[in-house]
Amino acid sequence: RVDGKRLWRSLMEIAEIGATPGGGCNRQALTEEDRQGRDLFVRWCREIGCEIRVDRMGNIFARRAGIDNSLPAVITGSHLDTQPTGGKFDGVYGVLAGLEVLRTLEEKGIRTKAPLEVVVWTNEEGARFSPAMVGSGVWAGEFSLEYGHSRVDKAGLSIGQELERIGYLGTEEAQPTPIKAAYEAHIEQGPILENQDQVIGVVTGVQGIRWYDLTFFGTPCHAGPTPMEDRRDPVKAMAWLCERLYGEVRAYSEDARITCGDLRATPGSRNTVPEKVVLALDLRHPMPEGLEHLHRTLYRMVEQVQEASGVAIDIREEWYSPPVAFNKNCIEAVESAVQSLGYSHRRMVSGAGHDSVYVSRVAPASMIFVPCAGGLSHNEAESAEPGHLEMGCNVLLQAMLASAEL
Amino acid sequence: RVDGKRLWRSLMEIAEIGATPGGGCNRQALTEEDRQGRDLFVRWCREIGCEIRVDRMGNIFARRAGIDNSLPAVITGSHLDTQPTGGKFDGVYGVLAGLEVLRTLEEKGIRTKAPLEVVVWTNEEGARFSPAMVGSGVWAGEFSLEYGHSRVDKAGLSIGQELERIGYLGTEEAQPTPIKAAYEAHIEQGPILENQDQVIGVVTGVQGIRWYDLTFFGTPCHAGPTPMEDRRDPVKAMAWLCERLYGEVRAYSEDARITCGDLRATPGSRNTVPEKVVLALDLRHPMPEGLEHLHRTLYRMVEQVQEASGVAIDIREEWYSPPVAFNKNCIEAVESAVQSLGYSHRRMVSGAGHDSVYVSRVAPASMIFVPCAGGLSHNEAESAEPGHLEMGCNVLLQAMLASAEL
Ligand SMILES: NC(=O)NCCC(=O)O
Ligand SMILES: NC(=O)NCCC(=O)O
Repeated sequence: RVDGKRLWRSLMEIAEIGATPGGGCNRQALTEEDRQGRDLFVRWCREIGCEIRVDRMGNIFARRAGIDNSLPAVITGSHLDTQPTGGKFDGVYGVLAGLEVLRTLEEKGIRTKAPLEVVVWTNEEGARFSPAMVGSGVWAGEFSLEYGHSRVDKAGLSIGQELERIGYLGTEEAQPTPIKAAYEAHIEQGPILENQDQVIGVVTGVQGIRWYDLTFFGTPCHAGPTPMEDRRDPVKAMAWLCERLYGEVRAYSEDARITCGDLRATPGSRNTVPEKVVLALDLRHPMPEGLEHLHRTLYRMVEQVQEASGVAIDIREEWYSPPVAFNKNCIEAVESAVQSLGYSHRRMVSGAGHDSVYVSRVAPASMIFVPCAGGLSHNEAESAEPGHLEMGCNVLLQAMLASAEL
Repeated sequence: RVDGKRLWRSLMEIAEIGATPGGGCNRQALTEEDRQGRDLFVRWCREIGCEIRVDRMGNIFARRAGIDNSLPAVITGSHLDTQPTGGKFDGVYGVLAGLEVLRTLEEKGIRTKAPLEVVVWTNEEGARFSPAMVGSGVWAGEFSLEYGHSRVDKAGLSIGQELERIGYLGTEEAQPTPIKAAYEAHIEQGPILENQDQVIGVVTGVQGIRWYDLTFFGTPCHAGPTPMEDRRDPVKAMAWLCERLYGEVRAYSEDARITCGDLRATPGSRNTVPEKVVLALDLRHPMPEGLEHLHRTLYRMVEQVQEASGVAIDIREEWYSPPVAFNKNCIEAVESAVQSLGYSHRRMVSGAGHDSVYVSRVAPASMIFVPCAGGLSHNEAESAEPGHLEMGCNVLLQAMLASAEL
């Protein structure tokens, strides 16, 4: 069993890096805070004798040698970056749960046959740089290294530049080494486990995600003398599209999701019809046909609103992460671990994207969820029970031991 | 008659200050560009012997002495500040038309009985600092000097600070001196004159304007796992409100106007439901009852959307400029001037707010409109015919001479 108190202390210590007044964390990818979080993780891993590698996407691999180091590794990990108004558990729990597994083995003097690795993936959130999971995505071959390095934030700074600046532009190729199994512990970020009073989610897959950048092109004109019928108003067109789209998505299925996380009018002068409105749109559905339906609905409505309003709408597909099914053996390994520990549990599909999505393309993978209060995540008030975090970490320990063998 | 070529040359010269790639002007209030524009105006006025005063709101008064300087002055003027993507005529035409009147009199050696003044009012646009017309508003007693100085831009810089920085924090009290009559020449900023093939608008008043800041308070949460019915989504509520409000305003009357010039979501992360959306709203109507109706409609819809969406909506009234009727004598003076010049003309109500709104509270005032291409304003492509500008300036000259007497 792991040491739940030690896990909690480490979580609270790293949460001080980028701590927000609202009790959360703002440790966005490749900022100074991210650097400090990475440094702390690396120090902790070195203290227990791990060897550290950093690849060209800034992904960090902390390796604990096995008895036979020619065997494929058993890996775990997640991310240390957060949303701008993020919480203390999203991502970092999965990294520190991995560290706690290694600390427990070290403390008990247990050696596994296969080597173990804890990974910190770069820019999982997709908040500072789009898309999400780009570090694991490049590593798994979904994106090229050039694509990864060239992603820019709102200020125009690129991942490549920022990796270099914070000292995490590694020299290893960003590509998979042989892997026996990969596990990722994470808070659920939704309300299912809590509502059903269960502690462990055995994650069988991840729903599909599509990201779009919409730009509505208006004609700037004066708010007063310009007759309403002479206007090309991008705010009106945007409101119209959103109103209908929310309705259509809701009507289609209760599994469907629509989110407009970012929205801005320019030039942003109160008495001028804006020149443009930019909208970042996120659509999700667990089934490929469902996501395809939402995608087609979006294009149909954009067409309609464009026609009816005279406002040209540019739609750019920013990211597509299709629904993923995890590896049967890994799912069963997690399920056996939970059963042997006697924790309440259920199988479930993840509503959030995770690094395991891309890891699962090149290695057998699955995930372990624990509840978070009110299902709330991407919020400074994100919170989880120390006892649940410990239980999730015990499941991770058992699953990893089962795969790595003693 | 004025020298239309000289007027045009001066307009083109000052348009170089803050010239934009799109052919317009970005000379926002109290920026470096505004300072340069003011300096040029002051230099031009000194060249023809005017005395310059600057008041504590940065309003500039260029005075040409009369035969009897104890008589109340006849004043004209407008503003040099522009929208962020503004044109070459809005405001600056009224200032340089006044200058052209003085230049013409100087050149011809004509002395008026009453002194004449050309005024540059501070921050008419309301683009950088809200509200609009704040320089003339403080001067006329609508706002206190403290209120005027304390207005801040999006970066938190205040009018008081910025006046000091650019060297236009004058020492004169910002309050009216005795005034016989006030005229303001301006481009129409709407399509009426052009559509009806008329050259001069005899402006009888200005429609009412109400400005609001709306804030929609959501609960940040994850775009994926959070069920739609558990969300408090400020974008959804905003879209809903806008959609209905545009419809209601349109249905109420074709004289009614609604504009959402600024709009922003925070923290602005693509996979997080925003914490808040801020919207700047502008409602207008020429009749007091009409504007009151729009105002009540807004509050009713805010109430409804709040209730139905669970999203709290804060509504702050930022500015109220009631409909204004100009002075009968000044309107007739303009009308007589146009008739004596034989220009086509019509009476009309201004759709835009102007410094004359506040000037008219403390002095007899009216305005002269000339057409602008396509009625387009608050746009870099704003354009006006040199011939029309000259004709408007001739009307201004005649109206001022009639009031100031020879
Ligand atoms: N776990 C998590 O918050 N991932 C961000 C990617 C997503 O938007 O689902
Ligand atoms: N003339 C002009 O553009 N004034 C700005 C004030 C308004 O919004 O009407």
